[in-house]
Amino acid sequence: MHDLLIKNTRPLGGHAADILIRDGRIAAIGPALVAENVPVEDAAGRIAIPGLVDTHTHLDKSLLGYPWYVNTVGPRLIDKIDNERKVKQDYGLNAHTQSMRHALQSVGYGTTLIRTHVDIDTDQGLIALEGVMETRRQLADIVEIEIVAFPQSGLIRRPGTAELLDQAMAMGADLVGGLDPCGMDRDPKAHLDTIFALAEKYGKGIDIHLHEGGELGAFSMELMFERIRALSMQGKVAVSHAFCLGHSDWNMTQALIDTCAELDVPILTTAPPSHVVPSLKRLRAAGVRFGAGIDGFRDTWGPYGNGDMLERAMLLGMKNNLRRDDELLMALDVCTTGGAIAMDRQQHALTVGGRGDVVIVEGETVAEAIVTHQPRTLVVTAGHVVARDGISLRERP
Amino acid sequence: MHDLLIKNTRPLGGHAADILIRDGRIAAIGPALVAENVPVEDAAGRIAIPGLVDTHTHLDKSLLGYPWYVNTVGPRLIDKIDNERKVKQDYGLNAHTQSMRHALQSVGYGTTLIRTHVDIDTDQGLIALEGVMETRRQLADIVEIEIVAFPQSGLIRRPGTAELLDQAMAMGADLVGGLDPCGMDRDPKAHLDTIFALAEKYGKGIDIHLHEGGELGAFSMELMFERIRALSMQGKVAVSHAFCLGHSDWNMTQALIDTCAELDVPILTTAPPSHVVPSLKRLRAAGVRFGAGIDGFRDTWGPYGNGDMLERAMLLGMKNNLRRDDELLMALDVCTTGGAIAMDRQQHALTVGGRGDVVIVEGETVAEAIVTHQPRTLVVTAGHVVARDGISLRERP
Repeated sequence: MHDLLIKNTRPLGGHAADILIRDGRIAAIGPALVAENVPVEDAAGRIAIPGLVDTHTHLDKSLLGYPWYVNTVGPRLIDKIDNERKVKQDYGLNAHTQSMRHALQSVGYGTTLIRTHVDIDTDQGLIALEGVMETRRQLADIVEIEIVAFPQSGLIRRPGTAELLDQAMAMGADLVGGLDPCGMDRDPKAHLDTIFALAEKYGKGIDIHLHEGGELGAFSMELMFERIRALSMQGKVAVSHAFCLGHSDWNMTQALIDTCAELDVPILTTAPPSHVVPSLKRLRAAGVRFGAGIDGFRDTWGPYGNGDMLERAMLLGMKNNLRRDDELLMALDVCTTGGAIAMDRQQHALTVGGRGDVVIVEGETVAEAIVTHQPRTLVVTAGHVVARDGISLRERP
Repeated sequence: MHDLLIKNTRPLGGHAADILIRDGRIAAIGPALVAENVPVEDAAGRIAIPGLVDTHTHLDKSLLGYPWYVNTVGPRLIDKIDNERKVKQDYGLNAHTQSMRHALQSVGYGTTLIRTHVDIDTDQGLIALEGVMETRRQLADIVEIEIVAFPQSGLIRRPGTAELLDQAMAMGADLVGGLDPCGMDRDPKAHLDTIFALAEKYGKGIDIHLHEGGELGAFSMELMFERIRALSMQGKVAVSHAFCLGHSDWNMTQALIDTCAELDVPILTTAPPSHVVPSLKRLRAAGVRFGAGIDGFRDTWGPYGNGDMLERAMLLGMKNNLRRDDELLMALDVCTTGGAIAMDRQQHALTVGGRGDVVIVEGETVAEAIVTHQPRTLVVTAGHVVARDGISLRERP
């Protein structure tokens, strides 16, 4: 926990002000603040935004630091999953090293809060989890990392996985993960019963990958809703991707969205240009907590991305056809404060009492900062300077 | 027309080679080329790609050089069109200055061939056309600019516009433009008859903006097909956007796509993440000429974009869910050689006899060059070095 005085910045592109952080929290925002014995950073009139929040990524998958991976993978989801397990073995991929590389690159881009899924499967067991937990420990002062124990290769179709997930939760994973109960495991009842039972056993939440589209995805969501009601898990179950909410049948999707609001089911999107996705404006209007994420990048799944949540705010804006400056502020909120709220962090904002996570960005306005996503001048986590000029101060392995 | 020897490059990411340009054309590609009295550039092992080709942009619209435009425009197409005319008047926007700024920024990113639409309307008459024609003249050695006379504010709904378009063609515009014959002009027959008659009168081609979706867009395309057949204008009529080709009805869209192939109607996309769009793989498989463009950027329509066609190749890849390296090469082709072919340029390629337009890019592979789109090291137009390190050598006004 640190003290810091950031002089001469424009919070969210507004009027010039200073930001005083004490004990890791924002103590004051206003003109000409003075504080004795507090380190000072001069933002030179640049914009301040809250720490960026990546609510959906995969710290254990990136091939950062390796030569370019020439991708020849097949078109199906299972092609990518099987290919990834093989490549991991061929490379002898070290999840700790890779997650350090990924997380510190994200820190350079101003991300101070991450929810990561970590692969748990019967090939590699809990090694990836151990590696990412070690990264979380080492970077605790730099970036907050929340871990989802994620059965990427299936749960019911690969016996032994449920037991590994149980061990993962006992070791300290924060949430139970899941994946396409119909499409992947071909047994939605067993899949969902297993992960809800684990969540209940450990008193933890759930974050489930749902790529299933249209009516199939709607069916899986309904099965989740039934279990949330039965176990009183309102507010504890998030759905990642949720492509089915982008389906063109308004009545079908509105019923799902209304239930997400009623049962407080946060939706986490990566806003892929290639897919129909939940609409930012529509979900926020319905009162659904809504966050955004990078997803994996530079891995065996595909070549795109770099860890930059400000670029993701741009893609989120482009995907949702946001053109007005006030709409782009909404996209930034999803990638900062709104995403943190979707992760149950209420105090992640540029307000007095808020966490002292501040990013100084280039741009005349917030919209320009998003569109150009130039290197971040300064990144501050809980009052502690963690990156300058786009590069984290902690060296990458 | 210039001579140039580019040493030590990797054409399209392949084996190391030199590229010799003589009289503006590629004379040889191979190892250890020698040429007396020819200037030499050392690419230091970096990748060479053909000059980037922007087949759809608006050089006269950008607000580059002005303070950030805070956008509060309404949601409809007509809101944006009316707002733009007003802002142009309020700013006293000079189309020559703006098109110089836009075109030279694009040159810095490696674009050597541009098709631009230029607004013709009863408010500003032919001023924008004159401004962009002057830019075309001044930059003739740096970037090839093809001009479409574009009735952005409508043709039939604004009497006098057809006469202005006629004058624009007489002044030297290269193609007749059009815009949503149903949605914009509410009179598709009159709109299409007018622009086809102008094209016939001047012996020029057509490039029509078609935002109309689904069945409405299909209807407008059918009306175009009828006129192409009747006037034997096969290969002379391109359609920009053509969102209707992304409609989910396979039979309907396949009939349209097959007719585009039969009548040789090139399709030019900007791959917007927010819209359904024509599929890259599907159109190429059907033998339809296919190009990509930036569209306007940093204008009253929206904040996104910067003129970088390598970033557009990334967006095209993301939009089309291209993940394999060979698929990304296809996206690059659309943004270079394929786009040039859609503009009737057959020799825009890294082959002997091809135009001496070469861009040196950073990246281990073409896929990495697209994904990271780092500043271009060197841009060469017809053997003439026109940009270095992302900046055009000709200063921007």
